[in-house]
Amino acid sequence: MDLPLENLFTWLDIGGLSVFAASGALTAARKRLDFIAAWFFALITAVGGGTLRDVMIDAPVFWMHDPAPVILCGVIAALAWAVPLRWWPERALEWLDAAGLAAYSVYGAGKALEWGVSPVPAVAAGVITACIGGVIRDVTAGVPSVLLRNELYITTSLAAAAMFVALTTLGLPLPLPSAIAFASGFVLRCAAIRWRLALPPHRGH
Amino acid sequence: MDLPLENLFTWLDIGGLSVFAASGALTAARKRLDFIAAWFFALITAVGGGTLRDVMIDAPVFWMHDPAPVILCGVIAALAWAVPLRWWPERALEWLDAAGLAAYSVYGAGKALEWGVSPVPAVAAGVITACIGGVIRDVTAGVPSVLLRNELYITTSLAAAAMFVALTTLGLPLPLPSAIAFASGFVLRCAAIRWRLALPPHRGH
Amino acid sequence: MDLPLENLFTWLDIGGLSVFAASGALTAARKRLDFIAAWFFALITAVGGGTLRDVMIDAPVFWMHDPAPVILCGVIAALAWAVPLRWWPERALEWLDAAGLAAYSVYGAGKALEWGVSPVPAVAAGVITACIGGVIRDVTAGVPSVLLRNELYITTSLAAAAMFVALTTLGLPLPLPSAIAFASGFVLRCAAIRWRLALPPHRGH
Repeated sequence: MDLPLENLFTWLDIGGLSVFAASGALTAARKRLDFIAAWFFALITAVGGGTLRDVMIDAPVFWMHDPAPVILCGVIAALAWAVPLRWWPERALEWLDAAGLAAYSVYGAGKALEWGVSPVPAVAAGVITACIGGVIRDVTAGVPSVLLRNELYITTSLAAAAMFVALTTLGLPLPLPSAIAFASGFVLRCAAIRWRLALPPHRGH
Repeated sequence: MDLPLENLFTWLDIGGLSVFAASGALTAARKRLDFIAAWFFALITAVGGGTLRDVMIDAPVFWMHDPAPVILCGVIAALAWAVPLRWWPERALEWLDAAGLAAYSVYGAGKALEWGVSPVPAVAAGVITACIGGVIRDVTAGVPSVLLRNELYITTSLAAAAMFVALTTLGLPLPLPSAIAFASGFVLRCAAIRWRLALPPHRGH
Repeated sequence: MDLPLENLFTWLDIGGLSVFAASGALTAARKRLDFIAAWFFALITAVGGGTLRDVMIDAPVFWMHDPAPVILCGVIAALAWAVPLRWWPERALEWLDAAGLAAYSVYGAGKALEWGVSPVPAVAAGVITACIGGVIRDVTAGVPSVLLRNELYITTSLAAAAMFVALTTLGLPLPLPSAIAFASGFVLRCAAIRWRLALPPHRGH
């Protein structure tokens, strides 16, 4: 077991979980729901993607034997609740979300590979893992899904997951693929937010 | 095997299933869909939460080897279809739904514990089990999710599941935890409906 | 292993996958999303139902060890992207979708039976398999679910799945049940589209 990779992986997991939990709690706050609802939205946003991933790759669902994710979602919901909404700049949340998206894409693809999934499905599993939590959050809250914004959201996730799987398959020494893939995805998404980068949309006819 | 608990558990399961099936069929009726759609909405509402629960705790999905739930959903959809909508007072449905919510919260947490899930995730699994069926129903039907109403919906579910797990962990003799937890959840939700109880919503800024 | 059945089954699977992938990509194009989003929508529409089916019947998820579905979705998204939207008559897509619906209903019920699911749940699993991909597509894209149209959508799926399971249980020689059930479902849905057939909607009071 390569410890640095494992450590980086663990941090990608905890980081992604925390950021998505915060985004779920904030969504509930914006909908003027109560504190328990904020915890619930934090939970389904944070563990939704990983639950689907583990079920698809036939791994035990990661939070069933570990109270930490449920409690962490409660703590983060409490923090998100306590801090006034105006202290959360829209952009800061987007940058945090960029980190979460890149982290979950890499972690999801890596865990799928670890469980024997083929490279191409592993990339797709990483993308679905990273993107579906936000979909669950938005659809349950009745707001338009983040995927419908033309701002390299899915593209970033795909780039990070594909880069991780490619570098791992090429046999790069172990901590490197996840570090490079995470950094690429994070930078790409931040650049898309900062300079409004987008792929050309469908011409519509 | 403690028979009374098993019996109460079975009733919680059948009761929750029936009530959620009725709410699914009524939602389809209100959308002026046909009878087959009413059965389909009854089915996805009634078995949706339990299917997710069983998949998460790695148990066989409860209705795969038992024709009863699918048929029961058909019978209830037929009844819901035959009875004019004006005979269904809004409030009566809400009280039935309160019973279903409490029943599924307790049953879900209990089944998770039975399958070796740790106490904290077992509570969360009970809450998700109980709440997600309604979310699937509302999102598929294109109506705002029941979770967005500030009326102790998730809170009731959390109270019932947490009480059950706490009393079970404390070692209370077996039929008691589920009876007490179900009754508490049901009474709390009925009180919330009757007297418009709610937790304070987010202050919105 | 009956080879003709296996072959027909494989074709039902590939056909259903392709058609649903096309419908997902077209939905993304209509929302004026970018090409990567078209691939993502193709993917979740095409593999969504089958993933749920495999998870419910406790089979390995079909696309985890096979790169073909993910790549096929990419190729179909590219084609759907390249062809101008006005070249896709609304009706042609509906007829293709009719083929996909019938194919997935039969294939889903058949795979459930193969994995030891009882006949009644197998029919329900076939229906959910065939219908849920479109629901995932529509809900994620923020358009009203196809299930809300009164045009024998679920009914067609139920007819095809039930006919397949009935004929198989009656012991008809093997390629026949899937051929007859697929043809019945496809013809019924085409007739519903062509002549606006529908079951009576709920009277609404």
